[in-house]
Amino acid sequence: MTDYRRLRVALLGAGSVGSQVASLLRQHADELADRAGARLELVGIAVRDVDAPRDAELPRELLTTDADALIVGSDIVIELMGGIEPARTYLLQAINSGADVVTANKALLATHGPELFDAADQVGAEVYYEAAAAGAIPIIRPLRDSLAGDRVQRIMGIVNGTTNYILDRMDTEGAEFADVLADAQRLGYAEADPTADVEGYDAAQKAAILASLAFHTTVPLDTVHREGITGIDKSTMDAARHAGYVIKLLAVCERLSGDDGESISVRVYPALIDRAHPLASVHGANNAVFVQAEAAGNLMFYGAGAGGVQTASAVLGDVVSAARRHIAGGVGVGESTLANLPIVPVGRVTTRYQITLEVDDRPGVLATVAGILSEGRVSIATLEQTVVGDGADGSGVARLVIGTHKALEQDLSETVDRLAASGVVERVVSVLRVEGD
Amino acid sequence: MTDYRRLRVALLGAGSVGSQVASLLRQHADELADRAGARLELVGIAVRDVDAPRDAELPRELLTTDADALIVGSDIVIELMGGIEPARTYLLQAINSGADVVTANKALLATHGPELFDAADQVGAEVYYEAAAAGAIPIIRPLRDSLAGDRVQRIMGIVNGTTNYILDRMDTEGAEFADVLADAQRLGYAEADPTADVEGYDAAQKAAILASLAFHTTVPLDTVHREGITGIDKSTMDAARHAGYVIKLLAVCERLSGDDGESISVRVYPALIDRAHPLASVHGANNAVFVQAEAAGNLMFYGAGAGGVQTASAVLGDVVSAARRHIAGGVGVGESTLANLPIVPVGRVTTRYQITLEVDDRPGVLATVAGILSEGRVSIATLEQTVVGDGADGSGVARLVIGTHKALEQDLSETVDRLAASGVVERVVSVLRVEGD
Repeated sequence: MTDYRRLRVALLGAGSVGSQVASLLRQHADELADRAGARLELVGIAVRDVDAPRDAELPRELLTTDADALIVGSDIVIELMGGIEPARTYLLQAINSGADVVTANKALLATHGPELFDAADQVGAEVYYEAAAAGAIPIIRPLRDSLAGDRVQRIMGIVNGTTNYILDRMDTEGAEFADVLADAQRLGYAEADPTADVEGYDAAQKAAILASLAFHTTVPLDTVHREGITGIDKSTMDAARHAGYVIKLLAVCERLSGDDGESISVRVYPALIDRAHPLASVHGANNAVFVQAEAAGNLMFYGAGAGGVQTASAVLGDVVSAARRHIAGGVGVGESTLANLPIVPVGRVTTRYQITLEVDDRPGVLATVAGILSEGRVSIATLEQTVVGDGADGSGVARLVIGTHKALEQDLSETVDRLAASGVVERVVSVLRVEGD
Repeated sequence: MTDYRRLRVALLGAGSVGSQVASLLRQHADELADRAGARLELVGIAVRDVDAPRDAELPRELLTTDADALIVGSDIVIELMGGIEPARTYLLQAINSGADVVTANKALLATHGPELFDAADQVGAEVYYEAAAAGAIPIIRPLRDSLAGDRVQRIMGIVNGTTNYILDRMDTEGAEFADVLADAQRLGYAEADPTADVEGYDAAQKAAILASLAFHTTVPLDTVHREGITGIDKSTMDAARHAGYVIKLLAVCERLSGDDGESISVRVYPALIDRAHPLASVHGANNAVFVQAEAAGNLMFYGAGAGGVQTASAVLGDVVSAARRHIAGGVGVGESTLANLPIVPVGRVTTRYQITLEVDDRPGVLATVAGILSEGRVSIATLEQTVVGDGADGSGVARLVIGTHKALEQDLSETVDRLAASGVVERVVSVLRVEGD
């Protein structure tokens, strides 16, 4: 066995990912040493309570509640605690004591990423975070390195496994949202409080991370437009299927060109995708990131978006990279945010839309609707009218499904308000963007 | 504009990829400088004939026939000439004069990769080759870095665009091989001499590169088992479709476990894939690499496998990485081949098979066939018999399509020989492996 230099590795957190990382580090120690060029010696695991019950067997002597003492003198610090504090303080401490840091903490990166990157830059360290977006799927390095010579035009990502699981079952089984959510909770795919997933908060954090990388621009989390999937019911799903679409919760990061130069838009919402699009066939709790770049064309990265052992794979890849850098010497590669493109609000984005309305079934109504759309600069591409039953006042009710050409979100939104107030529209059933052109 | 350090970039070759690289380097100079932390100054383009007609307009003053003079004093040398010599000599010269090198030359890497990597190791330089496998698809960094902490079990790649284009059209249009090949040649998807593509030589080179990386093992090109697609005709394609499969030319790199430890198999052949497998929906000239890793699970990387500008994207990503390393200092990351697993011949590989036979349509034949299979340790999973017409001697002919359980290639091959010589088999129509379990 080669006599390698030893690198001291500290682990903060021993949850489902952390315990897998600890176990793989020991299980594959020799192989990892060959690949990294150094022995990765796990010197301690910081936890809140050393006596708490855990999934995996971790050596009792490695557990400690004293994270500060553990961090001092470590070469590589892996943060898998989650949350903002004390994770942020520990990572800054690690960076300032000369360690490279590995984290899977999307919430922290999406809110305090620039602070961490700046601190690392100051001392020539590097922050590794492959596991923070799309779990085991290698997407950070492709965006940061492989596409560094290209210009990313758009990213469309299915980056939340829980919502994809729910939407996929609603689509394939015709099930209702609440039923599938309950199932997902029972199976461990969704948390007891599912808000972070189903309201798109988790996806928005990942969108901010991906957009920052792709556009070399700092993307604060509050500039990410966010809508969840709780408004998607069986009838909306059925209508989408009928029209040849599937509904996916998408993180869309887009470069926009206008008269006043380039800007970007970052948004998360349920959108219609053509069934022939590669993203449409991403099933279950899987993730996929579809990237359109000026030179490379269309790329897609597919795999498991979550899971302890899957995420541990991404974390360990980062640990090996950090170790190699330690051995090679030289300063770390910093984050490039020199483009710093302006971030536009969602109102200035153009997409296609599908508007579903219930209208009074009487002469002249279609003309009124068409007139309001036209005045609002929303151009009709497709239209389907069906009779659905009786309205509140006893008259007939028709359902209109209107597919638009590309329209400005602000125009569209104002137009829908005017439709709702027009007197001929009984109900705005749904308004969904169509992505993936 | 930031006052960056300048790095001298030399380009060897000005074909379809080279001219795109030259053009993008100049077109996006400011943006690339921000990302790399250095201005990438294209100091010259070595060509065989400065007066030859070219696709793109290249500044006449950059063209030179004196590659040696160009290489001396360059910080980064990009080799896009193709072929073994003089590319090999130039790259060694560049490495030994302290440059980092970027190459898309799969033939060279598959045959002289270790020599180049060793030379780079000696001087602390690095060899970048993202463009050498699967064109614009980022696969080298994911394998080398992102999955460095994981254990790759199997790679199945559609890594040759020409053959995928041909097989896809045969599948979707029911066309014959020769007709589609002629079309592909007319459209520029296939070369006038299509041997390298249709006989699997190109895919075998890429398989060797991917397997070396994935298994940390030197994989000489002559250990890669290789079969092309010229034997696939319309009837074979139709039969595959009928059975729920599609035929793809696959590069399979597999880790095998046996009583005497681990080994690997690297092979290229047309194989049957279930239509529900993600690789089955890779259409046209696209490429995709499906990776199964112990911890990460199933991953897929999809995109354009060839094309001048697409490949240029991968080359430029490497150039930016090389520039960042120059700025950061430190030695390059070497290739890790310390695992050096034994490479087994294809005879020792087990897969499922589909055997199609024409047999005499008379009592006892099925029993004979089943007996030969059983004696040969080939177990039948599915069987379909249809009557197809009259045999050479006037008796009836039946077609047997036999799906096997997993069998050893050597057993299978000997069994097929015995079937052919048995007197009851009129013709062995096809023997295809089934991949993707």
